[in-house]
Amino acid sequence: MVPHMPHLLVTNDDGVHAPGLAALAAALRPLGRVTVLAPERNWSASGHVKTLHKPLRVHDTQLADGSPALACTGAPSDAVALALLGLLDLPVDLVVSGINPHANLGHDVTYSGTVTAAMEACIFGVPGVAVSTEHTQAIGYEPAAAMAAKVAAWVLDHGLPAGLLLNVNIPALPAGAIRGIKLTRQGQRVYRDALVTRQDPRGRPYYWIGGEDPSGLEDPGTDFAALAAGWVSITPLHLDLTADWAAAALAGLVGPHPAA
Amino acid sequence: MVPHMPHLLVTNDDGVHAPGLAALAAALRPLGRVTVLAPERNWSASGHVKTLHKPLRVHDTQLADGSPALACTGAPSDAVALALLGLLDLPVDLVVSGINPHANLGHDVTYSGTVTAAMEACIFGVPGVAVSTEHTQAIGYEPAAAMAAKVAAWVLDHGLPAGLLLNVNIPALPAGAIRGIKLTRQGQRVYRDALVTRQDPRGRPYYWIGGEDPSGLEDPGTDFAALAAGWVSITPLHLDLTADWAAAALAGLVGPHPAA
Repeated sequence: MVPHMPHLLVTNDDGVHAPGLAALAAALRPLGRVTVLAPERNWSASGHVKTLHKPLRVHDTQLADGSPALACTGAPSDAVALALLGLLDLPVDLVVSGINPHANLGHDVTYSGTVTAAMEACIFGVPGVAVSTEHTQAIGYEPAAAMAAKVAAWVLDHGLPAGLLLNVNIPALPAGAIRGIKLTRQGQRVYRDALVTRQDPRGRPYYWIGGEDPSGLEDPGTDFAALAAGWVSITPLHLDLTADWAAAALAGLVGPHPAA
Repeated sequence: MVPHMPHLLVTNDDGVHAPGLAALAAALRPLGRVTVLAPERNWSASGHVKTLHKPLRVHDTQLADGSPALACTGAPSDAVALALLGLLDLPVDLVVSGINPHANLGHDVTYSGTVTAAMEACIFGVPGVAVSTEHTQAIGYEPAAAMAAKVAAWVLDHGLPAGLLLNVNIPALPAGAIRGIKLTRQGQRVYRDALVTRQDPRGRPYYWIGGEDPSGLEDPGTDFAALAAGWVSITPLHLDLTADWAAAALAGLVGPHPAA
């Protein structure tokens, strides 16, 4: 019996020419056949997009390291949908998205294009892994890519339960300094957005959503705490946003209409 | 003591001229001061967007019924962020988004611009309510708008727990035929997307994400089941996507690195 060669789809939200994508694809190639299909432009902070109103184009291109890839005109989740709907000639066993050059922690997951690619895989019933790091020039992407390959290899061997995706964040440390892998829960972002009002040359106002970078509460068990302590954070995510804990607080709102 | 007049921010993802927005604003005006700030264009299926890379413009406009409103160049969540960061001269007590002309059920909440507006409110610590219906010309928006006003009045009176938003879906029924309000959980969408491949006049392929409309599993307790049975579905949502139930399945993936 010929062993099955796994087929990995690799995508991102920074666009097909981003160095983090090339590093990820290179690290995953030893695990099986790798197809890269990624947006041709940057979709950061784009959220979960499905392009239904206009056609999508796919064209051949090259990654930052010169290796072949496919680029598409849609969002990260469109790239995943195109591949999983049959654009490629081979079924996909695993979708890996990244490497995002900034961590995706706390509420970031609701904005993150990197995470939505893994969400889309999950909706299609295919294991999805989102990979992010706090990129620095000094460290580069290689330590994060090696950790991503370790996680991907485990998922190819063991699978993921239905309805689950993994949000992986890797500390910006040399490979030897990363302490290991922790399972975490999604923490709390502290946003410090501020409205910046300016005037254009004709005296009309325009606005920037500015302010300081958001921080995070490093509560024990969270993604923020693990990353700050030098661990890889893996947060298992699902797409069920139901807040079961809120039922009692809402009891007074529900019920049949009184008879007229 | 002068009683506090509540200030409601009303927005949507279909754009400021959509009739569902005008119907919602009209129904909410008896509850307090209503400010409408909505995207100038349609952002359906846009996901949770934060516009950080370019400036945003805000201009005066009119709703479909001629009443005054503000339009902005960003996404629904940008409209909420602008308002809650201080664009308006008065703090906002409640954000209501809608009325979306299609239900937002199951995984739809991860794509829905209507829901992301309420998510953004939640992140700012302000109660957020997303309102959707299956619009028909025969029924119009008025029954849904009246139900939205009922929910909004309750939330203004009672508040919402921190971290909670409400996803409200209203059946396309005349007001008297709506049976009441049920608290639900997010159900499962069944997508039937298909890849449609075409050729342009120069023989190059392009792609549509097509296929049949998604359906939903009407399991007891879900948003789908309530709506199908003629009830208003209120699903309490939070932004914590952590899948606590998955810890055991992932136990083999985590741990410290072995000593080198």
